[in-house]
This record gives sequence, C-alpha cells and structure tokens, in this order.
Amino acid sequence: MNTRYEKENLSLVADWKTLERIFIRPEDDECRKTLVKYMEQILFGLHDFLKFNVGITEEISLKELTLGFQNTIINKNPEKKLADVISDIITVIAPRAVNVASPYFVGHMTAAIPFFMVHLKAITAALNQNVVKLETSKVLSVLERQILAKIHRLIFKESNEFYKRHVQSIDTSLGNFTTCGTTANLTALWVARNRFFSSRDKLDTDSNFRGIEQDGLIAAMHSYSLEKAVILVSERGHFSLKKAGGILGIGNKNVIPVGVDAKQKMDIKKLNGIIKDIKKNGKTGIISIVGIAGATETGTIDPLCDIADLCEEHSINFHVDAAWGGPVLLSEKYAHLLKGIENADSVTIDAHKQFYLPMTSGMIYFKNPCALDCISYHSNYVNRAGSVDLGIKSLEGSREAHSLILDSALKIMGSRGYALMIDHGIETAAQFAAEISKRELFELVTKPETNILTYRIAPPSLKNKISGSGLREKIKINRVIDEINITVQRKQREAGKSFVSRTRLKRKPGDKYGIVVLRSVIMNPMTDINILKEILDEQEKIFFSVFRRKKQ
Amino acid sequence: MNTRYEKENLSLVADWKTLERIFIRPEDDECRKTLVKYMEQILFGLHDFLKFNVGITEEISLKELTLGFQNTIINKNPEKKLADVISDIITVIAPRAVNVASPYFVGHMTAAIPFFMVHLKAITAALNQNVVKLETSKVLSVLERQILAKIHRLIFKESNEFYKRHVQSIDTSLGNFTTCGTTANLTALWVARNRFFSSRDKLDTDSNFRGIEQDGLIAAMHSYSLEKAVILVSERGHFSLKKAGGILGIGNKNVIPVGVDAKQKMDIKKLNGIIKDIKKNGKTGIISIVGIAGATETGTIDPLCDIADLCEEHSINFHVDAAWGGPVLLSEKYAHLLKGIENADSVTIDAHKQFYLPMTSGMIYFKNPCALDCISYHSNYVNRAGSVDLGIKSLEGSREAHSLILDSALKIMGSRGYALMIDHGIETAAQFAAEISKRELFELVTKPETNILTYRIAPPSLKNKISGSGLREKIKINRVIDEINITVQRKQREAGKSFVSRTRLKRKPGDKYGIVVLRSVIMNPMTDINILKEILDEQEKIFFSVFRRKKQ
Repeated sequence: MNTRYEKENLSLVADWKTLERIFIRPEDDECRKTLVKYMEQILFGLHDFLKFNVGITEEISLKELTLGFQNTIINKNPEKKLADVISDIITVIAPRAVNVASPYFVGHMTAAIPFFMVHLKAITAALNQNVVKLETSKVLSVLERQILAKIHRLIFKESNEFYKRHVQSIDTSLGNFTTCGTTANLTALWVARNRFFSSRDKLDTDSNFRGIEQDGLIAAMHSYSLEKAVILVSERGHFSLKKAGGILGIGNKNVIPVGVDAKQKMDIKKLNGIIKDIKKNGKTGIISIVGIAGATETGTIDPLCDIADLCEEHSINFHVDAAWGGPVLLSEKYAHLLKGIENADSVTIDAHKQFYLPMTSGMIYFKNPCALDCISYHSNYVNRAGSVDLGIKSLEGSREAHSLILDSALKIMGSRGYALMIDHGIETAAQFAAEISKRELFELVTKPETNILTYRIAPPSLKNKISGSGLREKIKINRVIDEINITVQRKQREAGKSFVSRTRLKRKPGDKYGIVVLRSVIMNPMTDINILKEILDEQEKIFFSVFRRKKQ
Repeated sequence: MNTRYEKENLSLVADWKTLERIFIRPEDDECRKTLVKYMEQILFGLHDFLKFNVGITEEISLKELTLGFQNTIINKNPEKKLADVISDIITVIAPRAVNVASPYFVGHMTAAIPFFMVHLKAITAALNQNVVKLETSKVLSVLERQILAKIHRLIFKESNEFYKRHVQSIDTSLGNFTTCGTTANLTALWVARNRFFSSRDKLDTDSNFRGIEQDGLIAAMHSYSLEKAVILVSERGHFSLKKAGGILGIGNKNVIPVGVDAKQKMDIKKLNGIIKDIKKNGKTGIISIVGIAGATETGTIDPLCDIADLCEEHSINFHVDAAWGGPVLLSEKYAHLLKGIENADSVTIDAHKQFYLPMTSGMIYFKNPCALDCISYHSNYVNRAGSVDLGIKSLEGSREAHSLILDSALKIMGSRGYALMIDHGIETAAQFAAEISKRELFELVTKPETNILTYRIAPPSLKNKISGSGLREKIKINRVIDEINITVQRKQREAGKSFVSRTRLKRKPGDKYGIVVLRSVIMNPMTDINILKEILDEQEKIFFSVFRRKKQ
C-alpha cells in the first residue's frame, strides 16, 4: 500500500467533507451515474457470477475458508472504496457463498427469489422506516395492518363485517410481522401461556394474581393450583417450539412430542390418550396443542380438523405452525390440504419461505383480534397507551417494513402467480417421487404430501437382506445404508453441482431407531423433473464410484 | 380499467412463461436496461421526493390515511406492473411515510443512513443467504464470526491470544446478530437466567435438576430453594427489559427499577440497598443487574464501573444495554464515557442505531465465549450437534446476513469515519443545550451526556410561580406546562417541517410526578446548531400563536 493510496482512502470518508457527501444523496449527473454504476455492478455482477458458476458453492474446506477471516481489529482509517467493496463481494464473497438460487439447490427451504424482490428490499432500505411506532413509519403502519388483514382473511375467512371492523382498528390486532418462524412460534406460545394463566381478578376476588406476564410462572401455578404446564407438539414439529418452551420458563422437556402415524402425521389417538392422561392427573395445564402444516423434514400436514375438534372439546389453545405450508392457501387446487387451519387460535407463516420474500420475514396471526392484548407493553417515549403504534403488542422492537415487500409482490403476481409456483412444487415433487420409486437403487421414504419428500439410497442386495432378518440384524444393515447415504450426500455437496440435505427419521410408528434420509424441497420454479433426474443420476454415479469396489 | 390493460396485467406474471422470466435474471441488453431503470427510479425518485419535500411527512390525519387501506381481499390476478408499483411507492407511499432522513427529524433514534447502505442491503437480498446454517450461507457465517470478534474486541479488549483462539472457533461463540435491541436484551437475560439456574448435577449428585431450560422455572426454584427471581434495572432502562422478564417467566413486576440520581444515572447507594435487602431475605435470586449505556430518554450512561464492582462482589451477572451508546467506543475522544463496559458479562448494541445500518440489526456480545452454550438447540435437519451452524445458539431462527453490511461499512468508513459522526452528535447536543439555556422560554431538563437531551417550554411567568409555591400548587402549574408542551410538540409535528419527540420524566429523585419533556436525538450528521435553532424558533412561534391570547 503506497502513500498516495492511503491518502485517497483517507479522503474517502474519514473527513467531514466526504462524510457529508455520503449522507447528501448526489445532485449532479456525474454522481448519479456513479451510483447507478454501483447498482449495475450489484445486479449484474452477481447475476453473471451465478450464471457462470452454476454450482452451489466453490469447493473449499471450512478451515481453508476461515484463513482469510482472522483479523479482529477494526481499521482506524477506511480500507476500501465502495466500488472496491462491491467488487470484493462479487469476486471474493459470492463465490464462497451458497448459490441458493440454483435450481439444483433443493436441500433447504431457501431458494431463488423473483428478481424484483431485490428492488423492493432496496426501497425499504431507502425509506428506512421503523414500524415499531407510527412516528417513524406512518403509512407503513397502516399498510402493514392492511396486509395483515389480507393474510388473516386467507387463513380464517371471517366475514366482510369482521374485516371492515378490524382492518384499521387501533384497539385490535390481527397479527404481527416477526423476524422469522421461530419468533412467530414463540409469540404464539407466549400469548397462549399468558391467556392460559390470565389474571384471576374476574374469577375470584380474593386472588391477587394479576396474570403470568406480570406476576411470573411461580405465582401463576400457585394461583391455578397446578404443578406443571405442557405444550403438545407433533414429533415432526420444528425445534423452535421446544426452544419456545425453554424461553417461556415452561421447560423444554414439557414440550411433549406426540407420536405420528405411518404417514408422518400426528396420531390423533395418541394425542387423545395423552390429553386424557394429563386431565386425569389434574395437576398439569395444557397451554397449547401445536399442529404442523408443512413439516420441515417431510412437508406433511397434521390432521388439523381433528386436532381442532379435540382442542375445542377440551378448551385447549390450538396453534398451527404453517411457516412452510401457509401459502398453499393461495392455490385453488391444493388449499384443501390445509382444511381445519381456520379453526386455529394462531397461525405462523414465513414470508421468506413460500411467499418468496428475501431473508427474513415471519408472520403470526391470531383468530381473536384481542389475543395480543395479553402481551402489550407501553412506555412514555414510544408506544404510549392508547396510541396506534404496532410495537405495543409484539415480541420484537424495531422492525423493517416487510409488509411493503409482501404487499407489492402480491400486487405484481396476484394469488394466481403464487399458485403457479405452489402447484409446480407439489406436482414436481410427485413426479420426483415416481422417478425415485422407479429406480432400483433408491427407496422413497416419505411420499410427498406437499413439495418435500425424503428418500434414500438402498442397494437392492442390502434391501433384500433387511426383509428377511431380525431386529438386531435390521439395525445393523440400516447402519450400513445410513453410512452410504451420508457419504453420497456429502460427496455430492462437495462436488458443488447440486445439493440435497439429509436428516434422520423414524420410518414407522414404533420404530426404535431412525434412518438417514435424503431430503428434497422443491420450491424453485426452475427446478423441473429433468434436473431432479440429473441429481439422482449423479447420486448413482457417486454411489457406484465409491462403493462398487466394496460390493464386488 | 379496460380489457387491454387487464390482459397486459395478466400476462405479467400469472402465466408460466412470465413467471419464469422473473426468476431468470435478464440476459439481453433491453431487459438489463429495464432493471437498471427501475433501480434508478428507486434511488433518485425517492431522493427527489425527499429533496423537494423537506418536511417530515405530509399533513394527513390517521383516519384519512387509513381510507385507502381498507380492502382486505388478495387479488387473484396481478394488479400492477413492477414499474407501476415502484411509481406508486414513490408518489403515494413515500409522501405519507416519515422522512426520517431529514436533519430536522431529531425526535427518535432513527435517522439518515449513508446512501451506500441501500446498495449493501440490495446485495444481501440478491445473495439471499440464510446464516442460520452453514449450508445456506458458508462464507457469510465465517464473516459473521469475524465481525462479531471485531466488535467483541472493541468492547472487551481481550488479548490477541484470546481472539486468535475464538474468532473462528466452532466450539465457542462471542455473540450473535439479532433482530433488534429487544431480542438482544432478551437473549442476554435468557442466558443470565439459564446460567443462574444451571444444572445441579455437578454440585449435588442427588439432584435430578438438569437446568432451567430443560426442566423449567418451577423445578429450578425448587432445586435452588428459592421463591422468587428478580432482575435489577435502572429506572431509565428500556421497556424491552421488563418485557424480557415477562417472556422468561420471571414476571415483569420482578424486573425491579433502581432509582436514579439527579443526573438520571443509576444510584449506586440505592442499588446496594436493594441487593442487601434481597440477600437478607434469602429466598430471592438476582438473575442479573442491567446497566444502561445511552438511556433511550436521556442518553445518560449508568456508572458501569461501580455496578461492575458490586456485581463482582456479590457474584451477580452484569448486563449492559448499550443498544444506543455502544458505538461511542469508536470515538477516541468519548470512549471513556463507557468505562466499565469491559467488565460486563453481556452487552447489547444495535447496528441500526449508531452504526447507521438500515432497519434492523441488533447484536449481543458475551464476555465468556461459552456463555451461549446454555441456550443451544440441535435438530436432525439443521444445526446438528457438532456442526458450525450459527443457528444452534441463537434466539432467532432464519437470519439475513447483516454482518456483511456492517463489515462493509467499517471498511468504507473506518472507525475514524464513525467517530466523526459520534463526536458531531455529542458536540452538537452540547451546543444545543447551551442554546436552550440561553432562551428565556425554555428550560433544559436533562443535560446531554451523549447526544440526547430533554428540555421543555416553561414560560417565565409560570416558572417563577413554581419556585415560590407548595407541592400541590407546583403539581398544578406543572400540569399547565405539560399541556403547553404537548400542544406545541403536536402542532410542530403536524406542521411537518421538523420533529422532536416527547416523553414524561421524573426530574429529580424523590419527585412523585414526572413532567412532560421534549426530547432531541442528534444522530444525523447533517443536523447542526443552526437547524436546531430553527426548531426552537418554530416552537417559540407556535407557543406564542397558541398561548399568547390566553396569556394576555
């Protein structure tokens, strides 16, 4: 680094005049051109990279990767110009990131997003509104209420009157934008906990209990003469539900998994049995039963109608985690899969999943427009009582105006545009399942109810051995098959052309041990059956190149 | 709407061919030009709007505003083209949003951001990485660790050896990016709670208690023979701390406010007294003491060294909420104001505040690189035990790569660039305080320690009356002054040229009632003393136009 360069760098920002320049947006044509040039660099530099690097990521070990990221001292002077920072991101960072936009990336719930999402995200950054309060967001708070009502209506289908009354009501609330599904689920269970252990003022004038939010869990249990509180969740539930139990003070071991049937859906008989056992004991409160609509591992949907009936019968809160599956409601063809969701007390949906928003945007909806009252917080400086600030009844504080992105996307695509993608995912997954079943080397493990399926490599010789053997032998063979799948998945990921994920699943109820499965999530509309066949071809190739020798 | 237009709209996205087009980024020059045109619209359309509408927001009542946002049905077909959506945002949404970038907007902790932040946010959207796991972020996870180490070092100043060991260690963790200060504080207190009520396996082999996260609060209290758990916070603490107490099951009434001295800083004698009282009782556990570094209302910093000493003496967890004040550490001139922060167990800093990132980005740091172990969660599908996934030890699930924005900004500006802004804010606030003291109509209420101050309009005639009167009369006069300030603040906000916020503060320890104060936050580098004088001039003008008649 020579002195001239250092001077140039210094003059960039670390004096007052240049600092001013970065805050006053450029007036003259020359500066405007520069700004646009940078944006072009971002839009097309990244695009070209993704185009010429069809792979998922550059092959580089984690250890090697970390070598360039060891310095822990913040530079006193500016190191680089904006243009150089952007160039570095395109040439150094992007190749070592993960090309989640590739149609060959079918391993996680992260995929390509429509290109205009980048524009919309840039708009929210340029406006930089904070929807925690009206004074820093104004119309964006109003718009957020409207879009919340639109999605609420999609889920709960209340009357015209209902929405007319609540869409812009300052006293009620149909839901919240959250960071992610995790905080949406946490919000739902926080509300369920507080509504379960509400103030006993109205019931019993002798009691001083003012509700769990104020008085805490110890006082709540005492007031309700209980010893334990539990949440019941399908075995396939996301780990954020267990985490919510930990955070809320209930204890994550009291987030009790309910067994699933052979289709990986919550077993209603088992649920019924658990409820009866708990009720018999009399000292345990059931805060909520959670149904999954689009399980992370299998895409399956719990029997929502049956769970809703049981919840109604026993007056138990019913939460649906539809972080993944919620947008299926936009498809006229497949919305019926979510039948029963309209009877939930609360529903989680992630906008950065099947609404195709950029990272990250979760949402939580409540059937009862007063449900969120039990988590309201006020202060003198923001969110004064009686104000319309959205931050009064939310887990998060400062928040970006994600609603503007969702609102715009729905205007640009309509529910029909979204339905095309939803239908494509579900139907392509069905084709993929058929293809897997056709191939001798593979075994379909969970049939896709939506657009997620699991399968595994199961060489016929080993598969045949399993069917005739005892439990101990079965476990042993399955361990061998597990190792094969772990190896093939890893080698495919490292080759960098395509990516499926892996997890461990119990195949049938009663199975003591899970098996390793490969997991495919079909959400990218550019992923078609031909690409999926290529992925299987590659897996076959890897399998034969690694294990043929052993086999022979 | 004519038929031709409807057809055009339909063809936009709601068929497969056009859907494909929005996922495949454009190849030909024509399309590229269109994309850039849209971005120009965003960058300069919004800019021009902000330039020609110097005010904070258009004058429009909330009721009027909501009229256009009543429809709650999602359109089946696309309603608008991207270009029209962007135009609408510029012409309909932006004028009704709040111009937080105006140097006359000095009421909240939201302000102008350097223009390149919009570029950087667009990059994170284009890459769309999810840092919850390595498989959807790779180098971004590594980069996040590095930037976490850089800020950790700024706060805790550990040795070279320490950072070399932990910067890229997969076993330890120096902190987390969070959504906002609220979830950062929640994470800190969640960790403090879990470390307080940790597993008793090691202490007592008879106990089955496996830690509060697993077994819950009831079992924890029982195991530790306690009846109550509390958190002690300065009276000036942010309401998110109280909320954290509610969420964590402790009960928000057990987040106990510690009185402040005449300078609005936590009174160490009072803190000492409270600790002694609690210890005497023997049945209450102190989970954490929270010091504030940059109080929301007054910008004041609690006596961190003294609190740290007390915490050490009594072995109590010490958390510092430096959501606002943290970046003062970047200023060589003023870093000393935060002396003692290096002794905290955890520190909250918001990147969307004085790191000038777009909404929203919080951070939480832990002195002990193993502190986050007590909130770790694993699953089979992501975050497998032993993996390097950042989502294993975090409150949030899916997360955007905010670290890339902070890393880039630090490279572009250096700590020196940031220091210029910090110094400007502190020094301009001091000038503003002097100006307020000079003017007869005003009264400085809290002297700015950093870049936040409060004052009020206090007409000399009323002020003189107060000094000679009894308590009841004082309260009465203060109520009159309160009303004056509420009116002037509201009228100034409605006029739309400038904005200060208001809050209610107890002026001195022992005061029974708070007074209404006007609150100024000087973070926009374009806000200078002349603009602040104009704001005072306007307040004087409003005051005289409204209250002169009454006065005469």
